[in-house]
Amino acid sequence: MPDGTATSYERDPAALDAADPLAAFRDRFVFSDPGLVYLDGNSLGRLPRATVERLAAVVGEDWGGELIRGWDHWIDEPGRVGDLLATEILGARPGEVIVSDSTTVNFYKLARAALAARAGRRIVVTDRANFPTDRYVLEGLASDGSAEIAWLDPDPIDGPQPDEVASVLDAHSGDVAVVTLSHVNYRSAAIADVAVITQLAHDAGALVLWDLSHSAGSIEVDLDGTGVDLAVGCTYKYLNGGPGAPAWLYVRKSLQAELRNPIQGWFGQRDQFAMGQGYEPRPDIGAWLTGTPGILGLAAAEVGIHLVAEARMTRIRAKAIALTEYAIALVDERLAPLGVTVGSPRAAARRGAHVAVRHPDARRLTAGLIDAGVIPDFRAPDSIRLGLSPLTTSFGDVARGIDALQQLLES
Amino acid sequence: MPDGTATSYERDPAALDAADPLAAFRDRFVFSDPGLVYLDGNSLGRLPRATVERLAAVVGEDWGGELIRGWDHWIDEPGRVGDLLATEILGARPGEVIVSDSTTVNFYKLARAALAARAGRRIVVTDRANFPTDRYVLEGLASDGSAEIAWLDPDPIDGPQPDEVASVLDAHSGDVAVVTLSHVNYRSAAIADVAVITQLAHDAGALVLWDLSHSAGSIEVDLDGTGVDLAVGCTYKYLNGGPGAPAWLYVRKSLQAELRNPIQGWFGQRDQFAMGQGYEPRPDIGAWLTGTPGILGLAAAEVGIHLVAEARMTRIRAKAIALTEYAIALVDERLAPLGVTVGSPRAAARRGAHVAVRHPDARRLTAGLIDAGVIPDFRAPDSIRLGLSPLTTSFGDVARGIDALQQLLES
Repeated sequence: MPDGTATSYERDPAALDAADPLAAFRDRFVFSDPGLVYLDGNSLGRLPRATVERLAAVVGEDWGGELIRGWDHWIDEPGRVGDLLATEILGARPGEVIVSDSTTVNFYKLARAALAARAGRRIVVTDRANFPTDRYVLEGLASDGSAEIAWLDPDPIDGPQPDEVASVLDAHSGDVAVVTLSHVNYRSAAIADVAVITQLAHDAGALVLWDLSHSAGSIEVDLDGTGVDLAVGCTYKYLNGGPGAPAWLYVRKSLQAELRNPIQGWFGQRDQFAMGQGYEPRPDIGAWLTGTPGILGLAAAEVGIHLVAEARMTRIRAKAIALTEYAIALVDERLAPLGVTVGSPRAAARRGAHVAVRHPDARRLTAGLIDAGVIPDFRAPDSIRLGLSPLTTSFGDVARGIDALQQLLES
Repeated sequence: MPDGTATSYERDPAALDAADPLAAFRDRFVFSDPGLVYLDGNSLGRLPRATVERLAAVVGEDWGGELIRGWDHWIDEPGRVGDLLATEILGARPGEVIVSDSTTVNFYKLARAALAARAGRRIVVTDRANFPTDRYVLEGLASDGSAEIAWLDPDPIDGPQPDEVASVLDAHSGDVAVVTLSHVNYRSAAIADVAVITQLAHDAGALVLWDLSHSAGSIEVDLDGTGVDLAVGCTYKYLNGGPGAPAWLYVRKSLQAELRNPIQGWFGQRDQFAMGQGYEPRPDIGAWLTGTPGILGLAAAEVGIHLVAEARMTRIRAKAIALTEYAIALVDERLAPLGVTVGSPRAAARRGAHVAVRHPDARRLTAGLIDAGVIPDFRAPDSIRLGLSPLTTSFGDVARGIDALQQLLES
């Protein structure tokens, strides 16, 4: 592993890859085009080899062979996969996480439930740089009169800071129901201080709802240790669950009896197959299920989560730091003279597993990179995101990606 | 095809199968245990052979090979599959249906939107025999003060009749926002009169929201022709989309500008990837999307829907009638003397594609049937549902299922 000093970028990427304790995990994934440099695992993670076999079995043997009898075990999947994610990746306990629905739907359920649990308080605190779907859901709750949004407008690179949160909590003293932010900003990769902001919210009598879509599987998380109330996230980024794989939600055990799922579906019903009169929620995290969970997506998500668990979050985080440090050093050395700036925090401790680089021609440059066999993604107006997914991105990928960008800028 | 007279049950099931114009469709599905008699395609439809290949391609080629670039075409899937379903199966127009989320989540979105669109009216009319998830969602809306439920309590076999709906509309004159019922009752298979009930609701100033989970793909539907406002349904029953495949929703074109999706997610945003400030819904059915749709489930659903479209609904409906008539005739002849009664309407025009048979020992009998290689399902307290999915159920299956039940009852 690189030593993290300023000289690491001078090293040969092949040497860095040779020293990478996670290098062998690349072999666990499909690389159908070995020449492709894929720097977008933060949008859609690569396909694990084991997923191909697992899905073939779920389709051919479970669905095709067991037919309706498959539900004897499928019924436990949202909780079983949730427990794996909780204990291996999120720092939560069994019975606090389920995998089902989309991040948007889960965020809606938890945001509405949190507002209802703080009756008399109407304010939701979030930030203008938060991921769009979170902002749009909250705007929906505001437009039907269920909430009022107090917007933070943080520095676009560093993201929301505790003092800004404290200040908005003070300004709306006694009226804040929920503080909801992304743990890792989707654009700049800034890490928010979960522990401190959660404590500030609690001191003000508010609940916290964290979106961990860009952190689950890329940086260490300790939901229970930091006292988080509620959280959501997707499984198709660093957890490699596949396109539109079901998302997850977390409800702290001690809140499960207090909060009510606003979307009361049959999968949340205590004695589901009695199909009786009157909704009575399950006495556990299963109360947050709604309709029939997507079993193919769940199976794929489970394989991806298993791989991350096997690699271990401490090692994944160490490699994410090494990859992003290396990328930033190369950008500073080679691309800064060509007009590129770094759009991510420079302190490794404050940065997730992607690096944003900024240039006025970012849109055109992104298209050029894709033509050259390097896939990052573009975020309007001027950012190229280099997603450095620790299980599948090599130091060689980083070097080749920066090389390609340099060539485009020089041409 | 049987001629539908009372003597059809005397025919040899092999002769009925030989004359069945849809018989060849069985070869399009996986029958990994040829000895199994599967009478639960109304809970989970069988696996189409083409789905195995399609999923392998979506996983290996699209996800594994295209990676994030797959979204260039995946983004259109909810609408593209929705258009196929709309035009071939639901009697709707392109741009009125999307496939995404679960039936429960879709029902919630439409029920809440309909209530909001009839501000000042609080009543939702539904029936005690409606599918549990629909009832539970409405109870959730009632418990947060958004609605009040006026319950119909119809005959358990015949389901809700227009005169009962008319009477409850009269009793709550001017205060009914929504009438919501299942088109085909999940227990008895009773068909509700969509055209007449929809007209009654409209005459009272209310919207209608139909749940077509047990009719889409099994009986002919004409959403536009009958003036239906809103509808939902699943794709894993008669549409053979697989366990937890995404559901669909329909919003009549003329209502799309008026109704607002209460779950405002980024997939419903007009210029989604601008990721800008302020939610502005798409000006089309896409406004009813929420989060990232499950692409594996969508691909499987599309294959199943294609098969139904290819078989054509007129032929599917004719076979459903023939199968259920045949089953009822056999029950009357052989099982009635053993204490079994028919729990479905006797008029073919009023009955969907399953037949409920009732016996005080239904639970034990269902277990015995499964041990004997016949899979129906049990519905508390006393019903065995025989699901006769027209594309995959043969007359021979019906005969063998009834034989097995007769043997159990006689032993």
